[in-house]
Amino acid sequence: MINVAILGYGTVGSGVYEVINTNNDIVSKKAGDKVNIKYVLDLREFPGDPVMDVLVHDYDVILNDPEVEVVAEVMGGVEPAYTFVKAALMKGKSVCTSNKELVAKHGPELIEIAREHNRNFFFEASCGGGIPIIRPLVECITADDVLEITGILNGTTNYILSKMSREGLGFDEVLKEAQELGYAERNPAADVEGFDACRKIAILASLTYGKNVDFEQIYTEGITKITDVDFKYANKLGYSVKLFGKARKVAGKFYAYVAPVMIDASHPLYSVNDVFNGIMVKGNVLGDVMFYGSGAGKLPTASAVVSDVVDAIRHLNDNVYIEWSSDNLELTDIKESEKKFFVRMKGNADSDKAAVEAAFGAVEVLTLDDVEGEFAFVTSTITEAKYDEAASGLDNIITRIRIE
Amino acid sequence: MINVAILGYGTVGSGVYEVINTNNDIVSKKAGDKVNIKYVLDLREFPGDPVMDVLVHDYDVILNDPEVEVVAEVMGGVEPAYTFVKAALMKGKSVCTSNKELVAKHGPELIEIAREHNRNFFFEASCGGGIPIIRPLVECITADDVLEITGILNGTTNYILSKMSREGLGFDEVLKEAQELGYAERNPAADVEGFDACRKIAILASLTYGKNVDFEQIYTEGITKITDVDFKYANKLGYSVKLFGKARKVAGKFYAYVAPVMIDASHPLYSVNDVFNGIMVKGNVLGDVMFYGSGAGKLPTASAVVSDVVDAIRHLNDNVYIEWSSDNLELTDIKESEKKFFVRMKGNADSDKAAVEAAFGAVEVLTLDDVEGEFAFVTSTITEAKYDEAASGLDNIITRIRIE
Repeated sequence: MINVAILGYGTVGSGVYEVINTNNDIVSKKAGDKVNIKYVLDLREFPGDPVMDVLVHDYDVILNDPEVEVVAEVMGGVEPAYTFVKAALMKGKSVCTSNKELVAKHGPELIEIAREHNRNFFFEASCGGGIPIIRPLVECITADDVLEITGILNGTTNYILSKMSREGLGFDEVLKEAQELGYAERNPAADVEGFDACRKIAILASLTYGKNVDFEQIYTEGITKITDVDFKYANKLGYSVKLFGKARKVAGKFYAYVAPVMIDASHPLYSVNDVFNGIMVKGNVLGDVMFYGSGAGKLPTASAVVSDVVDAIRHLNDNVYIEWSSDNLELTDIKESEKKFFVRMKGNADSDKAAVEAAFGAVEVLTLDDVEGEFAFVTSTITEAKYDEAASGLDNIITRIRIE
Repeated sequence: MINVAILGYGTVGSGVYEVINTNNDIVSKKAGDKVNIKYVLDLREFPGDPVMDVLVHDYDVILNDPEVEVVAEVMGGVEPAYTFVKAALMKGKSVCTSNKELVAKHGPELIEIAREHNRNFFFEASCGGGIPIIRPLVECITADDVLEITGILNGTTNYILSKMSREGLGFDEVLKEAQELGYAERNPAADVEGFDACRKIAILASLTYGKNVDFEQIYTEGITKITDVDFKYANKLGYSVKLFGKARKVAGKFYAYVAPVMIDASHPLYSVNDVFNGIMVKGNVLGDVMFYGSGAGKLPTASAVVSDVVDAIRHLNDNVYIEWSSDNLELTDIKESEKKFFVRMKGNADSDKAAVEAAFGAVEVLTLDDVEGEFAFVTSTITEAKYDEAASGLDNIITRIRIE
C-alpha cells in the first residue's frame, strides 16, 4: 500500500480525493500497488463529509509521517505551497502539483531538489488541465527540434471569446455571465489579462527548450480590449479570435508572448472553443501535432494530478529526468518578430486608404455594412517594430490584433 | 555512445536514418548519450548514398554484434520482421518498430520477451504516425476508466473522404488520383477496406484495456461503397464522413469496429481532414481528450520511431511496464450496440415514408434537389440487430452509414 497526502480540499483537491477513491481499482493497478489517501490537509472543517476521517489541519503531521510517500499539492498560489512542497521533497517524498504559479516561479529548484533526493516533482495538471501535455513534451517529442509551441491555455478567456463570437455580445456582458456561471473568478484579472496563460506558456517553453523561461519577461496582453465589432470583422474574414500563449524559435532566437490573435480555419487550434484548451507543437520533422481537451474543471484537472501520483508511485525511488535548468533562456524582444496585423481605424476607407498605404504599404481594406465611421485593414507580414513605427504616424487607430 | 541498427531502408527507414543524423545533437541530448547508427539492413544497394558506409545485407551481423543496443524495425509486414525482432529481443537488444501488422499480431509475446530480458519493445509509430498516442495511453491516461477510444487512423482513406467531400467527386476517381500522387498504394485494399485501421484500433484497444484485442475479431467495413451522393446528403445534414476505428466499454461489455461513420461538427474529430489522423480518448473523469497530427509520412513516422529509440536508451536496462496480456479481451457482437443510422432508399419519400416508419418507427426524411428516384432517412437510436431486422423487411435500400 502506498500512502498519499492531499494538500488542499478545494475544487481540485476534492476532485483528487474523488478520483483516487472512485477509480481506486484502476489507479492501484496502474500504479502497481494499492493507493491509499492517508491525509487531506485543509484549515477548514467539512462536517458530514467522509474526508473528515483523514482531514488534518497541521502540515507537520504529513511531513513527519514516513509512511507518506507522495504528496499532491493542489492549494494554488505560491505560498504556503512553495514552503510545503520544498519541505516534502527535502523529506524524500515525491510531490505532484496542479499549481502553475508555483511551477512557473520555482520549477527548476523543485525539480533539482527532487533529483537530489531521488524522488520526483511532477506537474502535469499545471498546464492544459486534463490534457496530457507535460509528459508528452518531456517523454514523447524527443526526436525533434521544436520550432514552436502554441496554446489556448486558459478556459475562461476561451469561453468568453467563443461566446462573444457566437452571440455577438460585448466583453463586459459575457464576463459578467461567466462570473455568474462560475466560469470566471470574481476578480478575473489573472484570466482576462493573460497572467494565467503567461505562466503556462512559460512552463511549456521551459520544458521545450530545457532552460528557464521567466514568465515575467514574456510580453503579455489580455482580451479586455476585444469588442463585438472586432468579431464582426473576424467573421467577415473567416477568422476566429483566440488568446494564444506562444513560444517560437526562429534562426536561433527565442520569442514568447501571450496575446489575442486572429487565426483562420486551417489552423489546428481554430476549432478549440468554449472552456476547452488546445496545445499545438511544431517539430522540424514531426510537423504539427495538437493536443485537445478540458483545460480546467475539477475532475479533468484531478485526473491529471492522479496520473502524476500513479507515475510517482511507479518511479518511487527513481528520478525521472526533466530538463529545465535554472539558467534563463534569453528571449528576444517580440518587436523583432514578424506577422500580419488586423487594424481598425476611425474614418473612411475610401478617403483614408492612401494615408494607410503610405504608412504600411499595400493593405487589404474591409468595411462593415452595419458599422459606420470606421474601417479596417490587414497589413502584409511585417515586424512588430515596423507596425509600431507605421502606426505612430496615423491618428485614429482604434485597435490592432495580431494575425497568426 | 549507443549503437543503433535500422532494419529496412525504405520510406520510414531512410526517414529514421535522416532524423537521427539531422537532429543528432537533440536526439543524443534527450537520450543522455551519443546516438550512432552502426548498421542499416537492406537487401538492396544504394550507390552514392552515404548509407552505404553502414549498409549490411546479413541480419546476423547485427544480431551478433553486442555493441548494438537498440534495433529500429521499419520493414513492415509480419515476416521476416517477427523473426528478426524476436531474435533481437532474445539477444537482449531493445526494439522499436513502426510495424502495426507485427504489433497487432505478436504484441503481447514481444512485450513479454522484452520484459524477461529487462529490455523494451516500443511501438509508438505503429498507430497515428508521428502523433504521440501509445505512450500517452500507457503512461499518461492512468487515472481513468477509459470508456471509449476512437480514431481516424488511416491517412489514405481520410484523404480520399476529405477530397470526395470537398470536390464532390466519386470514390474511384479520387482513389486513382491518390494513387498517382503516391498517397494510396497500387493495391489499396489494406487502406480502403479498413484492414490497416483495424490493426491500429486493435493495438490501441489492447493497451487501453490491458488485454489482447484480436484484430481478426473486429467488425471491419471499408469506404469503397461511399459515393458522391452520400456526401450530398452528409453536407445537407451538416455531417462529415470519416473512417472510424472505435473501441467502447458499455456496462462492462467491450465493442470494437472499423467503419465509415457520419459525425457532426460538435465531434472532436470532425475537423480532422486530408492525410491527418486524430485519436479521441474518453475517460470517466478526464472527459474527452484528442490527439491530432500527421498519421503517416516519412519524417513524422520516423520522428515517432526515433522518440522510441530515445526512450529505449533512457531505459536501457530497465523494462518500462506495458500492460497487454496475451489473454483475449472478449468482444461483444456489435449487433448489440446502439446508434442512429443514415439510410438511402430507392423510391419516393412521400409514398414510401409510411413503409419506412412501419419498419423503423419515426424517422427524419431527406431528399436532394438534384438526385431523383431516391430519398434518405435517419433512424432513431437503435441496436444494429434492430436495424438489420427492420431493413430486412424493406426492399430498395441502397446503403446505410452509421451515425456517431
